[in-house]
Amino acid sequence: MNQKQAIRDAFWSPFRETVRREGIPYQWLALNDRVPGAEPSHWMRNFRAAASGKPGAHGGCVFQDSDGAKWLEGVAYSLRSHPDPALEAIADGAIEAIVAAQQPDGYLDTYYILTGLDRRWTNLRDNHELYCAGHMIEAAVAYYESTGKRALLDAMLRYVDLIDREIGPRRGQRHGYPGHPEIELALMRLYRLTGDEKHLRLAKYFIDERGQKPLYFEQETRESGNDFPWKDSPFGYQYYQAGKPVREQTDAEGHAVRAMYLYCGMADVARATGDESLVRACEALWESTVRRRMYVTGAIGSSAYGESFTFDYDLPNDTVYGETCAAIGLVFFARRMLALKPRGEYADVMERALYNGVLSGMQLDGKRFFYVNPLEVNPVACAKDPNKRHVKPERQKWFGCACCPPNLIRLLMSLEDYVCSADGNALHVHLYIGGDFTARVGSSDVRLHVETRYPWDGDICLSVELERPASFALALRIPEWSHKWQIGLNDRPGADEIAFAMVFSLQGPGGFVGVDGKTQVRDGYAYIEREWKPGDRVRIMLDMPAQFVRANPRVAEDAGKVALTRGPLVYCLEEADNGPNLHLVRVGSAQPHVRERWQPQLLGGVTVLETAGLRESDEWTGPLYAPVRGAPETQTVQLRWIPYYAWANRGTGEMRVWVRE
Amino acid sequence: MNQKQAIRDAFWSPFRETVRREGIPYQWLALNDRVPGAEPSHWMRNFRAAASGKPGAHGGCVFQDSDGAKWLEGVAYSLRSHPDPALEAIADGAIEAIVAAQQPDGYLDTYYILTGLDRRWTNLRDNHELYCAGHMIEAAVAYYESTGKRALLDAMLRYVDLIDREIGPRRGQRHGYPGHPEIELALMRLYRLTGDEKHLRLAKYFIDERGQKPLYFEQETRESGNDFPWKDSPFGYQYYQAGKPVREQTDAEGHAVRAMYLYCGMADVARATGDESLVRACEALWESTVRRRMYVTGAIGSSAYGESFTFDYDLPNDTVYGETCAAIGLVFFARRMLALKPRGEYADVMERALYNGVLSGMQLDGKRFFYVNPLEVNPVACAKDPNKRHVKPERQKWFGCACCPPNLIRLLMSLEDYVCSADGNALHVHLYIGGDFTARVGSSDVRLHVETRYPWDGDICLSVELERPASFALALRIPEWSHKWQIGLNDRPGADEIAFAMVFSLQGPGGFVGVDGKTQVRDGYAYIEREWKPGDRVRIMLDMPAQFVRANPRVAEDAGKVALTRGPLVYCLEEADNGPNLHLVRVGSAQPHVRERWQPQLLGGVTVLETAGLRESDEWTGPLYAPVRGAPETQTVQLRWIPYYAWANRGTGEMRVWVRE
Repeated sequence: MNQKQAIRDAFWSPFRETVRREGIPYQWLALNDRVPGAEPSHWMRNFRAAASGKPGAHGGCVFQDSDGAKWLEGVAYSLRSHPDPALEAIADGAIEAIVAAQQPDGYLDTYYILTGLDRRWTNLRDNHELYCAGHMIEAAVAYYESTGKRALLDAMLRYVDLIDREIGPRRGQRHGYPGHPEIELALMRLYRLTGDEKHLRLAKYFIDERGQKPLYFEQETRESGNDFPWKDSPFGYQYYQAGKPVREQTDAEGHAVRAMYLYCGMADVARATGDESLVRACEALWESTVRRRMYVTGAIGSSAYGESFTFDYDLPNDTVYGETCAAIGLVFFARRMLALKPRGEYADVMERALYNGVLSGMQLDGKRFFYVNPLEVNPVACAKDPNKRHVKPERQKWFGCACCPPNLIRLLMSLEDYVCSADGNALHVHLYIGGDFTARVGSSDVRLHVETRYPWDGDICLSVELERPASFALALRIPEWSHKWQIGLNDRPGADEIAFAMVFSLQGPGGFVGVDGKTQVRDGYAYIEREWKPGDRVRIMLDMPAQFVRANPRVAEDAGKVALTRGPLVYCLEEADNGPNLHLVRVGSAQPHVRERWQPQLLGGVTVLETAGLRESDEWTGPLYAPVRGAPETQTVQLRWIPYYAWANRGTGEMRVWVRE
Repeated sequence: MNQKQAIRDAFWSPFRETVRREGIPYQWLALNDRVPGAEPSHWMRNFRAAASGKPGAHGGCVFQDSDGAKWLEGVAYSLRSHPDPALEAIADGAIEAIVAAQQPDGYLDTYYILTGLDRRWTNLRDNHELYCAGHMIEAAVAYYESTGKRALLDAMLRYVDLIDREIGPRRGQRHGYPGHPEIELALMRLYRLTGDEKHLRLAKYFIDERGQKPLYFEQETRESGNDFPWKDSPFGYQYYQAGKPVREQTDAEGHAVRAMYLYCGMADVARATGDESLVRACEALWESTVRRRMYVTGAIGSSAYGESFTFDYDLPNDTVYGETCAAIGLVFFARRMLALKPRGEYADVMERALYNGVLSGMQLDGKRFFYVNPLEVNPVACAKDPNKRHVKPERQKWFGCACCPPNLIRLLMSLEDYVCSADGNALHVHLYIGGDFTARVGSSDVRLHVETRYPWDGDICLSVELERPASFALALRIPEWSHKWQIGLNDRPGADEIAFAMVFSLQGPGGFVGVDGKTQVRDGYAYIEREWKPGDRVRIMLDMPAQFVRANPRVAEDAGKVALTRGPLVYCLEEADNGPNLHLVRVGSAQPHVRERWQPQLLGGVTVLETAGLRESDEWTGPLYAPVRGAPETQTVQLRWIPYYAWANRGTGEMRVWVRE
């Protein structure tokens, strides 16, 4: 039986192919400063210069090393599902360049190698050494796992040994931790590969020490004379997720990406150690993030200042930051919460971010990217309102700080790892994506073969491949947005199958017991417990109506507005379809009829939604303000909604997710 | 006949008394760094240090000299209407301190005197020398006009002579102009006093040279190596109002206060020279400001970044800048446009800014001030959203950059100068304020005695005092907000008076001819043309209903919202009266019944407005976003509206001007 994981999916495969054919080669050019008109990356130049042994100028941001590391990690995943000797040779060359820069003692960060090794470890807060190390560790593990090649892995093991000598609880060691979390989750990946307790211990140390008094960063600031850029900010050291010990943190605060990466490391350590206090901290931070500080697209980070969270229910649509990397980080976090406990809410949020706030970061041709993902755009404001200058009405080629594009690569190319997971004697299916997915459930290797047109419809066929019959629960996720659904087993005629073919309707978290006494809905999953025979087929039909949603009334920005969704997709209005001045457009009735139209030629193939709406007249004479004379004149218009992820692929114009009622 | 101008008005006199009794002494303490807990001004310290002849540290902003100058100007007006030997002695002492710092060649700016005279004139763009000179000139003229004392005037005449030698069109002169306009309008005031053409010529030079290519500021930057702080801004040199020659400027752009002060100088020069091209530029900039870029409160400056204008109809209520000085500048500009041509629109805007966006800058006790005047406030957002950190939920004691408080003093203490003006053979009444106001109309000195409870009602009684009967037109302003009004003459019985006692209703700009064939409504004024006899009495009754207003539909921020006004006053909802989460409050019907209640004990005596409104429920369970199930639950509530100028006098809380329909 073919063990290989593979995505063969009408929706995702084209994106992955775009990334493989366009994104990966394009970003390799970018890393080598060979994209005309794009900001240079300096990545390869920095490593070559560092290997030369001579001090010199370091190009780009202090964390530039991480861009190539994320690219390498993405390449590793790509090779896993699509062997490509030419690409592998390029990657081997990149790794050679990295390893060549490693210092005799194992140190490997081009910024300090080029600008002065005497200053290394003196600004853990801002200079990203440990952050870059983390990304290189992830790349090393991924590259080893797909190719079996150890060069980068061995180099990183040596580097980790050095870090473990330099930083830690013992006298003479620096009692520090990174200003930008990442190495914590990377060390846990390394630990799962090596089983070396040292790797777990170091990750745990970084997490436990963070935010303890006396604050390491204050001490470091005194000793190294580093300036503290966030003196007057509302978040202070919480920008670095270091304002307090992690177990005392209950609100998602500060820099959103740093928050997500830290929470991932916390969840990994909690799972490996069974530390209940850490689990509770993860749960509190999850709830703060997704129940009070997350956009309907799964975007997070309400303010450009500090790329940060602000306060509960503060979700401005036009000045939002919503960095692509932060939504990706939320996907990472959700996946780890699922590993702690399979709950539908985690998968719902993972799916929301993936299909909306993450995917919107990339142009359909895979060559341009959003750093910021707004929910409301007026191109004039982007140009003329300094509060919105961080919001771009079109995706950019590359960025001086290019964290997002390679982050997209590594997530999309490893998407198969997010589809399902085994938990004891249950196989949970979290995402409905076509392909073959394998897992070891109990004592048997199970391969799920999935076919679906998801997210365009909710009809999913799964077949179970395994050596010999085995008893386990197949747990199919019932998304929060699906209020009617149906599960059928083995569409051959037969009594027990007919029993299954009836309609279940979700009875809320309480759960539901199926007629055969063995099918239960718990925490957002339908558990089908039985002895599975090779070739058993399951079909789940999720009712996927277009539906308007409202935000919690405490979200002032969305008061009197609704957003249109269908299945996992959030929709939006674009000027290209609906004209300018979208603030004058209203949905009209509370629940208008929605017409669904599949348009294979549009935006790579999308289901467009159409509703009858209202447009207020923009005719106005006289002064700027005038007495109310009845309601504004309106005319009925046909509104055309497209999936949010596909916006800004037809030139620049206005866009809105939240529309007046 | 007593020629003295005097305001005796139930609304304004208390504010002026507060300024006289509290504001002026308090600000004198501030200028001398004697207000505990307030940021030091350094004003007096700088002058004493400058007079000492030794170089030393300069305290506060580079334009600190202007704070005391504006205070002195305000004192001059106060002495005019309320002689006060003790205060005059203090002012004389301040002037002594100023004059003592003047250099042998006439130079007088403490920043360069203390930090190095060799650098003077090398950064006209950012270092405010000419701006400070302008304010000192205004103070000198005002102080001379009220007290007859020449000390400061003579010092400034010498300083102006130096500036006139250093800067100008001739070879060897700097072909420069101020980065912050102000001296232009000040020189025109000086010119009206001295009649010296040199003063007009210099003002005209500053205006004509501004923005000409090659740009002086670029040249200066090259020669002096000054950094250009606005490289990456959307407005560039328009921040300084120097992006193009003034006659080519058609949009209000850049720093709002600089814009207003420049426009004032332009209007003054246009009036003195009859330059039609300059008049047209003023009219275009007026229209850009008030028809596309002004808040309903008369506030201007949509963005904190650069304290600047942004683009047409961009009027965010919560991130607004709306500096008090900018609204004051708009009042200055409006008054000068009235001098060019008496049109109701100019007076309407002057009144709108004065009663709302200007007055809101001062606490009722005269001791605390707003720099920023928002139309929507959530105190949590001020603390936690960096985009709103410039917005304060309560007025501050003093500012490191304290331009606004003394600007309020000088405007409020000279308010009598804004009430009426003579234009040829007509006496125009622009503002309805109680007191005695004199003007020379044609060949006769006329004194208007005005009695009214305005702005609480629209009933105004005027009596005309003059030596002997004279024929001229008394032009009474018909505010844009009054759609029904009535004028009566000499409430003694008599045929011709009865003819006047009928009701006029404004027929739009086309104008209206009264029954006696001599009363016309033109451009917002009712012209009563007749032979006026001593003691003639006129009564105008303006219908002053509370009315909801709408913004031009292109103002996205106000779409679906209305504001409540009554007469010249804009009203608002405060948390103190209406509870928190004001975004959930709705007006309900398009034109609800408004109940007016005079409350003498509240906020110094205000008419409160009450309407029945709706409040949407904030009850919500489950995730942050949920499918729409019909309209949100609402309950009927009693809304209590207070005048905007009086907000934030009862502790901190939410406030809103624009409320959902």
